[in-house]
Amino acid sequence: MKVARQSILAVKPYVGGKPIADVQRELGLTSVIKLASNENPYPPSPKVLAAIAQAARDVNRYPDGNCYELRRVLARRLGVAPGQLVFGNGSDEIIVMAVKAFVREGDEVVIAKPSFLVYGLASRIAGARVREVALKSFRYDLEGMKRAVNKRTKIVFIGNPDNPAGTYVTRQQMKAFLKGVSRDVLVFIDEAYFEYVRAKDYPDGIRLIAGHPNVVVTRTFSKMYGLAALRIGYGVARPSVIGIFNRVREPFNVNALAQSAAVAALQDRAHYAAVADDIEAQRRFLYRALTALGLEYVESFTNFILVRAGAGGTKAAQALLKKGVIVRDMSAWGLKGYIRVSLGTSLENKRFIKTLGLTLSATNRECPV
Amino acid sequence: MKVARQSILAVKPYVGGKPIADVQRELGLTSVIKLASNENPYPPSPKVLAAIAQAARDVNRYPDGNCYELRRVLARRLGVAPGQLVFGNGSDEIIVMAVKAFVREGDEVVIAKPSFLVYGLASRIAGARVREVALKSFRYDLEGMKRAVNKRTKIVFIGNPDNPAGTYVTRQQMKAFLKGVSRDVLVFIDEAYFEYVRAKDYPDGIRLIAGHPNVVVTRTFSKMYGLAALRIGYGVARPSVIGIFNRVREPFNVNALAQSAAVAALQDRAHYAAVADDIEAQRRFLYRALTALGLEYVESFTNFILVRAGAGGTKAAQALLKKGVIVRDMSAWGLKGYIRVSLGTSLENKRFIKTLGLTLSATNRECPV
Repeated sequence: MKVARQSILAVKPYVGGKPIADVQRELGLTSVIKLASNENPYPPSPKVLAAIAQAARDVNRYPDGNCYELRRVLARRLGVAPGQLVFGNGSDEIIVMAVKAFVREGDEVVIAKPSFLVYGLASRIAGARVREVALKSFRYDLEGMKRAVNKRTKIVFIGNPDNPAGTYVTRQQMKAFLKGVSRDVLVFIDEAYFEYVRAKDYPDGIRLIAGHPNVVVTRTFSKMYGLAALRIGYGVARPSVIGIFNRVREPFNVNALAQSAAVAALQDRAHYAAVADDIEAQRRFLYRALTALGLEYVESFTNFILVRAGAGGTKAAQALLKKGVIVRDMSAWGLKGYIRVSLGTSLENKRFIKTLGLTLSATNRECPV
Repeated sequence: MKVARQSILAVKPYVGGKPIADVQRELGLTSVIKLASNENPYPPSPKVLAAIAQAARDVNRYPDGNCYELRRVLARRLGVAPGQLVFGNGSDEIIVMAVKAFVREGDEVVIAKPSFLVYGLASRIAGARVREVALKSFRYDLEGMKRAVNKRTKIVFIGNPDNPAGTYVTRQQMKAFLKGVSRDVLVFIDEAYFEYVRAKDYPDGIRLIAGHPNVVVTRTFSKMYGLAALRIGYGVARPSVIGIFNRVREPFNVNALAQSAAVAALQDRAHYAAVADDIEAQRRFLYRALTALGLEYVESFTNFILVRAGAGGTKAAQALLKKGVIVRDMSAWGLKGYIRVSLGTSLENKRFIKTLGLTLSATNRECPV
């Protein structure tokens, strides 16, 4: 059999953060911490666990393909109509649906470089030409991205804030961009880290939909809401755009336990407010500790930090791994010498800093700059 | 924005069996039974529930994208290499992956008519031409399907047994078909109901892979294993074919709770052997009861039965619904006058038969044949 197109064989498959169990198995370690996948480091709230246990009793039944209850609760929370929502098996799936619905072989998409790997991956598999516009000082060059749009462009992907840089596009920048781009182009604003951002000039993408029918905004329950294992995210757009997403969506794409857990998470506001405050405190701790180690980092508006680990960057990630601390080596993103560390619990972050300090003094002795 | 192709707007979206909660809400009923989605009517085994509860504690972590543990356990059970397996968000997703990997716009696929709706749906969305070959006496016309294959054909979908007819392709028929079809065509054998079949001449598709590199076999944990809510299925093929599926697969497509539940289900053999025996007994009960009602049915090798409800078929499904018994009206499949009923628990099946008897005598009075 022949694959549909060579681009499928040409793409480098996505490599996620190493699972804890893999590291334990491969390196024979018992105590391993994972700061590599931008997960919420805390276990779920008791209300979420109760909702999962309740839903598990009906695990023999297919999920509600329309996510009736979650749709109702989330629409009210966001102040949108229920028909403005589409749910996905993680917000990753909303990216894939957008490509499926709007991109034909030979069409183009515009992304930042580096940005979240799935934008380019999903587009290339579909046979699209991917135009990459380099970040400037780790921030989106929206002017450059606007210039990269042409008549073949179907989607512009904007991670706001994006991974791996952790920076965001301001309200003013976003509005200027939207004004300058044809309404025939889908502007896909990925707000996976929305709940972490505290900057005042950060735009809530959902508020842009009314004035811009070509905007779709995605968010996820995988990050702040800590439901990564269950795979659930969503997209918000005009009902006509959502109607198209629903046509390419698989009928039972969101599992029932994820739906129930998401409803419970939305209702447990106190729990997540406390988590958000803690993550903010952890960010400040890591900034201070990294500075004390003499390391540069990119100011982040997410739950991870991009750190310039110097000439020994890749070695640092490997050395940390051997000591049971999983972080992400950024060379796959073209950021040689950088590592990306997710904000963990207080104990995890202290272990990371301590291990990193020992590692750097060792590797920098071996390979001086 | 313009959709990628008109076929996306032209397809009739899949309509699943009505969820119990929807019927309760819409009709104000408290006691509703669902015999419409070919689900396992029994709650999960205690071991499965325990596995879900255990996995829920780590719900903040991304799932293992490689399904390491499940892959190990399942490969051993099936007698295949771990690299011969690909996992999906339900086996539906394996169908979608096959289309994505092998079908370009303008290519063709061959399916039976009627057959499981997702084969045609996924293919049409991708811009494929779908050649449909009518069943003969509710069985696959494999000779006709072979004749429908041409140079543009990329996939032939064979549900074995298929939904909605419930019949199967014999070993001899399958082998003759495989012999006559080019190895450039993917033969997609969907064995979602594999665990229900007790016929001696039913072929285990996995045993055909060694001799036929173009065969992929899918199975699911949604039916006999009763994990429909969690969405997990798998495909088996040669490692080179699996490698292609993995390239178009989303990295975290299978949620972690599904992986853990599936491992526990595979290990609880006694529970599922008892369920299988019970379902078999329920099938015999329904055959007798339908015959007593003077109704014809198609002999089924699955956990559902296609019943000829006569001139009042659609009315019968609606009348049953109003009395809290959800079955599937088959007119969407082009089978006017037929309903499809899933095998439920003993109590559910008795209620179905009793309600159907009352309904038919009422509707047949209204509209005599």
